[in-house]
Amino acid sequence: MTQPLPLLERAAAVIPNGMYGHQNVVLLPEGMPQFFDRAEGATLWDDQGRSYLDYMCGYGPNLFGYGHKEIDDAYVARMRAGDTMTGPAPVMVELAEAMTAQVSHADWAMFCKNGTDATTMAMMIARRHTGRKTIVLAAGAYHGAAPWCTPLKGGTTPEDRANQIHYIYNDAESLEEAVRKAGSDLAAIFASPIKHDTFVDQELPDPEYARRARELCDEHGALLIVDDVRAGFRIARDCSWASVGVQPDLSSWGKAIANGHPISALLGADKARMAAATIYVTGSYWFSAAPMAAAITTLRLIRETDYLERTIALGDRLRAGLDAVATRHGFGLRQTGPSQLPLIMFHEDEGFGTGYAFCSGLLQRGVYFHPWHNMFISNAMTEADIDLTLQAADDTLRDVRAGPKPGPVEKLQILAQLAAE
Amino acid sequence: MTQPLPLLERAAAVIPNGMYGHQNVVLLPEGMPQFFDRAEGATLWDDQGRSYLDYMCGYGPNLFGYGHKEIDDAYVARMRAGDTMTGPAPVMVELAEAMTAQVSHADWAMFCKNGTDATTMAMMIARRHTGRKTIVLAAGAYHGAAPWCTPLKGGTTPEDRANQIHYIYNDAESLEEAVRKAGSDLAAIFASPIKHDTFVDQELPDPEYARRARELCDEHGALLIVDDVRAGFRIARDCSWASVGVQPDLSSWGKAIANGHPISALLGADKARMAAATIYVTGSYWFSAAPMAAAITTLRLIRETDYLERTIALGDRLRAGLDAVATRHGFGLRQTGPSQLPLIMFHEDEGFGTGYAFCSGLLQRGVYFHPWHNMFISNAMTEADIDLTLQAADDTLRDVRAGPKPGPVEKLQILAQLAAE
Repeated sequence: MTQPLPLLERAAAVIPNGMYGHQNVVLLPEGMPQFFDRAEGATLWDDQGRSYLDYMCGYGPNLFGYGHKEIDDAYVARMRAGDTMTGPAPVMVELAEAMTAQVSHADWAMFCKNGTDATTMAMMIARRHTGRKTIVLAAGAYHGAAPWCTPLKGGTTPEDRANQIHYIYNDAESLEEAVRKAGSDLAAIFASPIKHDTFVDQELPDPEYARRARELCDEHGALLIVDDVRAGFRIARDCSWASVGVQPDLSSWGKAIANGHPISALLGADKARMAAATIYVTGSYWFSAAPMAAAITTLRLIRETDYLERTIALGDRLRAGLDAVATRHGFGLRQTGPSQLPLIMFHEDEGFGTGYAFCSGLLQRGVYFHPWHNMFISNAMTEADIDLTLQAADDTLRDVRAGPKPGPVEKLQILAQLAAE
Repeated sequence: MTQPLPLLERAAAVIPNGMYGHQNVVLLPEGMPQFFDRAEGATLWDDQGRSYLDYMCGYGPNLFGYGHKEIDDAYVARMRAGDTMTGPAPVMVELAEAMTAQVSHADWAMFCKNGTDATTMAMMIARRHTGRKTIVLAAGAYHGAAPWCTPLKGGTTPEDRANQIHYIYNDAESLEEAVRKAGSDLAAIFASPIKHDTFVDQELPDPEYARRARELCDEHGALLIVDDVRAGFRIARDCSWASVGVQPDLSSWGKAIANGHPISALLGADKARMAAATIYVTGSYWFSAAPMAAAITTLRLIRETDYLERTIALGDRLRAGLDAVATRHGFGLRQTGPSQLPLIMFHEDEGFGTGYAFCSGLLQRGVYFHPWHNMFISNAMTEADIDLTLQAADDTLRDVRAGPKPGPVEKLQILAQLAAE
């Protein structure tokens, strides 16, 4: 009798490289599971039945816990009544009303599927609004995976990135220099709400830089775009830049807005309404009703629960605890960004060896950490989960300290190669 | 006491133009409902509670009927177990195996959300595979709504459409001329499986043209891409060009593959696997498990039921019946394309006045037709539904014949203006 092939071999046969995109584990530490069978609250089970306390939250969507009954019930009820139809359901208007009521700069909403859809629409609307072409973006910032913005250039052309000028995040002077270079052709300034690039420390936005971005757009008649796909509703119950008192003209959303159900959104101010009304963008499932019903329930939980204060408190507890654990074992941690969006790396660990060893050790102890992408605290987590994590970190760092000093991670060179092309 | 605002006014306040994209009814005949509350089988109910026999099928996704219990149950069961997680579920591999088993040219699969995601990935993979930039496409064909392909150019730049050369669908000579122009830079030929452009008659593929496309790609080392997003599994239980004996290298899918649940796909031959493995494309919900479970059930129904023969027979019955009705009232119909993907227009109706009057009259009689976009027969329809439609058409055409001759539809000039920009 022949044995069934292992899942990874089957995947390698019918999916290029076995997997693609941000959920490909090829660049992650040894032992990170590629497939998960089940999810509940803050816990994932892989296809071998092993469970993990999950700090990635699906790379962002899980805000209120996997399988949240109230949100999922709203999805199912609307799906059973009618989901992808020949026109949208009234719930689309209700959701647009809820989003514009929630986000102070927003007068209108458009819904789509990918975060990339929303950032691409933002770019098109800015170009339509101004009649100009040049967009100014922070170097290294992630705004999606279409040819104009995907972080690796394979399969793209120089023309896909024509009309782009880069600046350094949080550096008002470099932003001014980029705007000067754009001259009379400035259509928009893109900004992430925080610097949440992979592989490097996160940075909170410097209020002076954020205000300067607003002023420069106003001076030049360009649009200010905040890409809140990843961090939206995790920093504020409003656009994340409400935290520094700056209102963009457009903001892109996704991930947490429906707790994992497939929907993204572009929100805009009245100023950009006419431009938004005269571009043609659409998708087969952009008008589907069920994810909109889930988003309305999620927004109600955002308004009515203390999820934000809770996730911040849990993140603070994790950060303080990890610092103490690391110090005890003689490691220096670089914990950056808002504590509810933690990025945790090690001092003097350019080759990520210690970070990978740390994640591998945590994984063996049932905790899923990421070595170079910001993580996410879910409202389904508890103080006991954090304490369990700290215990696992304590045990892991003791092992790492006792073992041979980890060398640089060779598989990251693959990425460096691809990025350099 | 103030009355609640009507839904359309509320929509106009919080959505640019009140609606956007292909489900915006602004260019459709008077009285076409913008919002639907409920869907079941082949029937839609608008937000006023009026019901319609729906020939648009959500613009394609509804193949086995709205609210198909078996498919939707598969979705819900997988959703409750875990949907958008930190990695895909094993069901992703099962679906890739099912799709590659079903579609004869396909050795691998990648899943995404929008049809546009799949066509964009196809373009990137062809460029990566060949190291060239030029893609050759049929003029007027719809391949999505990203800046490189959206049918209206507002918000796009000339650079977005650099490296594109157009040919005339079904015209082998014009295809050869386009390939000649591409010279040594030909990356891919795009082809719709049938000509299903809006506003003009549909055309089945001329086998000679399809074979020539294949030969030209082989001669030049370029990739042949069939965009089966709209027509996939409605013409064959394989890629639609299996019907003319031509195998593409890449094919894009969406719409019917999960009967309305949000998923699209790119399928490819081994030849293109390495290129597919070295582009970076992704999306927040591309790895979500629930739509994949729904797609697996849909694929089983595609294999095991006579849906294809049934929808063709129903389409044939509609086509023959409508011809007889039209002739009886002195109208000449242009019924083009496969009968299960009917496009129905009138002879001597350049201004679409008769077509709009026909659709309005059908709508009043509970039948939803589209005047200039191909329609879809769903397997949830019955012969009785077709006969009801023919009776409604008979009554409508008697009225149209008796009334004043309809003039050109002025609102279509808006579109002509936008398209010309």
